[in-house]
Amino acid sequence: MTEYPESLFKDYPHFSPEESDQISRALEYLISVSSNMARPSGEAFSAHPVRVARILADLGMDGDTVAAALFHASAELPDFSPEILLSRFNPTVESLVSGSSRISGLNMKNKTLQQAESIRKMFFAMINDIRILMIRLADRLDKMRSLKNLPESEARVIAQETIEIWAPLANRLGISSIKDELEDLSLKALNREAFDQIKALVAAKKGERASFLQEAEETLVARARASGIEIAVQSRAKHFWSIYQKMKKRNKAADELYDLLAMRILCETVNDCYTMLGLVHTIWKPLDNRFKDYIAMPKPNGYRSLHTTVMGLEGRPLEIQIRTREMHDIAENGVASHWLYKKGTSNEIITENSLSVINQLKELTKSRFTDEDYLASIKTDILGDSIYVFTPKGDIMELPAGSTAIDFAYHVHTAVGEKIVGAKADGSIIPLSEPLKNTQVIEVITHPQAHPTQNQYANAHTAKARQKIRAWLAENDPGASFEKKEAEQEPAEQKHHHRGIRTHEPESSEEREFDAAVLNIRIGDTTNFMIKFAQCCKPVPPLPIVGYVSRGRGIIIHRKDCTNLGRIPEIKHRSIPVEWEVPPEEKPKKKK
Amino acid sequence: MTEYPESLFKDYPHFSPEESDQISRALEYLISVSSNMARPSGEAFSAHPVRVARILADLGMDGDTVAAALFHASAELPDFSPEILLSRFNPTVESLVSGSSRISGLNMKNKTLQQAESIRKMFFAMINDIRILMIRLADRLDKMRSLKNLPESEARVIAQETIEIWAPLANRLGISSIKDELEDLSLKALNREAFDQIKALVAAKKGERASFLQEAEETLVARARASGIEIAVQSRAKHFWSIYQKMKKRNKAADELYDLLAMRILCETVNDCYTMLGLVHTIWKPLDNRFKDYIAMPKPNGYRSLHTTVMGLEGRPLEIQIRTREMHDIAENGVASHWLYKKGTSNEIITENSLSVINQLKELTKSRFTDEDYLASIKTDILGDSIYVFTPKGDIMELPAGSTAIDFAYHVHTAVGEKIVGAKADGSIIPLSEPLKNTQVIEVITHPQAHPTQNQYANAHTAKARQKIRAWLAENDPGASFEKKEAEQEPAEQKHHHRGIRTHEPESSEEREFDAAVLNIRIGDTTNFMIKFAQCCKPVPPLPIVGYVSRGRGIIIHRKDCTNLGRIPEIKHRSIPVEWEVPPEEKPKKKK
Repeated sequence: MTEYPESLFKDYPHFSPEESDQISRALEYLISVSSNMARPSGEAFSAHPVRVARILADLGMDGDTVAAALFHASAELPDFSPEILLSRFNPTVESLVSGSSRISGLNMKNKTLQQAESIRKMFFAMINDIRILMIRLADRLDKMRSLKNLPESEARVIAQETIEIWAPLANRLGISSIKDELEDLSLKALNREAFDQIKALVAAKKGERASFLQEAEETLVARARASGIEIAVQSRAKHFWSIYQKMKKRNKAADELYDLLAMRILCETVNDCYTMLGLVHTIWKPLDNRFKDYIAMPKPNGYRSLHTTVMGLEGRPLEIQIRTREMHDIAENGVASHWLYKKGTSNEIITENSLSVINQLKELTKSRFTDEDYLASIKTDILGDSIYVFTPKGDIMELPAGSTAIDFAYHVHTAVGEKIVGAKADGSIIPLSEPLKNTQVIEVITHPQAHPTQNQYANAHTAKARQKIRAWLAENDPGASFEKKEAEQEPAEQKHHHRGIRTHEPESSEEREFDAAVLNIRIGDTTNFMIKFAQCCKPVPPLPIVGYVSRGRGIIIHRKDCTNLGRIPEIKHRSIPVEWEVPPEEKPKKKK
Repeated sequence: MTEYPESLFKDYPHFSPEESDQISRALEYLISVSSNMARPSGEAFSAHPVRVARILADLGMDGDTVAAALFHASAELPDFSPEILLSRFNPTVESLVSGSSRISGLNMKNKTLQQAESIRKMFFAMINDIRILMIRLADRLDKMRSLKNLPESEARVIAQETIEIWAPLANRLGISSIKDELEDLSLKALNREAFDQIKALVAAKKGERASFLQEAEETLVARARASGIEIAVQSRAKHFWSIYQKMKKRNKAADELYDLLAMRILCETVNDCYTMLGLVHTIWKPLDNRFKDYIAMPKPNGYRSLHTTVMGLEGRPLEIQIRTREMHDIAENGVASHWLYKKGTSNEIITENSLSVINQLKELTKSRFTDEDYLASIKTDILGDSIYVFTPKGDIMELPAGSTAIDFAYHVHTAVGEKIVGAKADGSIIPLSEPLKNTQVIEVITHPQAHPTQNQYANAHTAKARQKIRAWLAENDPGASFEKKEAEQEPAEQKHHHRGIRTHEPESSEEREFDAAVLNIRIGDTTNFMIKFAQCCKPVPPLPIVGYVSRGRGIIIHRKDCTNLGRIPEIKHRSIPVEWEVPPEEKPKKKK
């Protein structure tokens, strides 16, 4: 019979006596039904569920979740009876077990089912109770910790799925402790060489800089105390996966990266955080454009902190995070802090409903996406990074990183998306193909006669906008040759194509500048543009025209049949529909 | 006889009784020697010097300066006697008068002398005592305020010189109150239409947003008080010249600019400034990359403040400056606060010697520049904007904005400049033609056999580096065809030239990646590069080679005679000398 120390679940002050008692009884029952079972590795059957339950207890999850975790893989046990769960434990335990077992079952058949369908069902089950999701996440973490027991090919498949789905999910739930570990373990399984290299390098750097970091810590604590502020300072290596990403992004070897180490300052109050920012900047010179105020603008997962990068010793940039202790707990445990703090008095906890990922998953459940679209939406719209942009009224909107003005328009409303002809960012016209940037003010220009196009489909980033455009095109333009793959590759191909051809953008001197108002040009509902007329084709009413969004020189109006048009770089992505403004009675018929 | 109110110089608490008395006697003497003199405009002769003296008194300048200012234009008066100055006033008064009169005289002959020579002599006189410079600046301000009395053509010449020399000088001395006024008056003289447009627009916006700004002020004061902080809030329109610059830069009409208004928060302590930053960010959302910490990194003119831009009402960005009252006084009065505070206990004053502009002017006096080079150096090296960069050791260096790694190298030492072959910014190779950015870490790569080239001359921005390179070329390469004007226009011409030709940058797939260490390539003293070998010409030792600094793909090594080289865009500015590393005894002779 498997033995566990008496104290296994006793060292958690956040459990009530009832919760502790239930966990003890659950462990007893688990051992009784699994005592003669062993894993292929020879390990006792109960070892894995016990570790998963410990992970959840460490995160501060409630007693029901921890008890349920003990049974999350028990469906396969011949002696296990869900009815006994109902009679001996809180009803919640049974519902959590049945929720996570159903997913387990799905997971088992993973290899034969479509990945998309499997993941869809998994999320569907999980959003009923976020604790089911937490159990699955802890289960995944323990699986990743035990990868060495699996054949390499199988380990790689699990690591790949972890990096695509589970680590991003942990990130969106704000649980950085689990996210970081999942990413590092995936790197180890997928690129052992890089992992070992980074590990050795970080160890070396830590040694090299130990005395600097210690001195820096002492200086910070002393200066803070002189300002009446109590702080704790932590030095740490950045996690391996983030170093690996930086190597790839900057095309550098790890030893060329300067910023492998980072420092964290924990304060008592928010005001102290900002005061410490000033003290830090007094001690070391801050680098330009590296200050991020995630206290004022929390990440969608609830993360709050000040970030700054300063010039530390010997020209080495040092990233410093400044936050309160409570913000730190939330950064580490994310949504789990909901349970940890719910008995406390904090008003800074992340509630389940305030997490945008949960609302997005719930909304997605209502969609009529195909499994394929669903998976695309999970990956790009929900699990990817996100940005914030402002509406012209100053309202804030969260969008997946990489979104264009087309995605923004569909996010505001499908009716807006379907009528978009152009967009401004911070008051300047941008091409509809341009990814939006954080905190830009986005203004959509619509036209009553506009409609979705294949070109817009290619420039939409979110699965939501793409699905809407595709649906419209399928219904209204059945003749359109509509190959998804091609459309997706279009931008890259086009760029490549232009490389070899002679490109020529008209010189400013070749353009006359007109007063747009006098000439009655309208673009959508707006006339407030800087408009110039191309000298090459000298467009005059009523010849059909097209607008080319130049870089920094406003919109250049060409004739639709201008021979120069095809030679303009990126013309496809930088052109917008324009028309001569005509009195209402003369308005041309809506084109088919 | 001209009469001035008894209280004219009495309302300045910073004058001692002795200073007040001396100013009164100076005014009496001025009136006595000028009572029968009048300006062409009909104004009393003494009116202008009295106004100039008032400007200086307002700035907080000392009594000697104010007294001397009364005589700064008296050399032309028949009854005026410098000897009487010596007998009746402090000796300093006479020396300031004689210093500023000498410049006055030069100024009078300005139209016949070379501008360069004139300005050089002016600065030479001024750096002996910065107070002379202050008198000239106040004189210029009063001239600009009285421009309407001059014919338009003359007014434009004065306004042009003001915008090129005097406003930048006021800026470098940190006197923003005078700088802003000089710029706005210049704009009025040089582009009356734009001035009137902006003025009307700002008035309209102020009206529109008055209630928002008042509400915002009240919110700020209340929130600050709740945190135990006393603040004063000022709303203001940005000054017209800066709006005009923004219109030109963004190619927009004034009414398309969102950020015409700004807000300023004055605090008691530095800690309060950072706490207020946090409060401001809590009330309004901060925009990305708009936070500047000039408290931690004061501008070279001593300016200190926090800047941030937030999303205010209706999607309108609002710039907010946060500083202590003392920082604010220094921002307004710059170097003048030296005299204002020198009796006080402040340790934040700007001393004459800490101002980099003064040291730069002094250093320039020692140079053996031609008048033309001197003027170029004044305009680009001294009066222009500047940036800070870091050395690889983390030391901080101030350079004129627009400086390249070549300028950096010459700034470190002429010997470094003469041996430069390449440079890294933040660890990545950059072309020597690339302007450096604020707070980059710059590393110079040298080679013992390198020497200055005409190409480097074209890529140097500072007059200092250009002068050194020209001197070296004149001495060591007398055969070099060396046309300054051509060299200066080269980059623009080349760009233009490339527009029309077919350009082709080799694809990554066409390159093999080698281990640079194994192949013994050396670039200067460094081998730590990402090096690839061009597939087109397949260079092998010992064929002569050249390195092309690609964007993001490291250095591509081509044969020197590769036919593709000429087709690579910007090859002239992006190539660096490289050579195969050979054992010392085989080293090729130094090339002529």
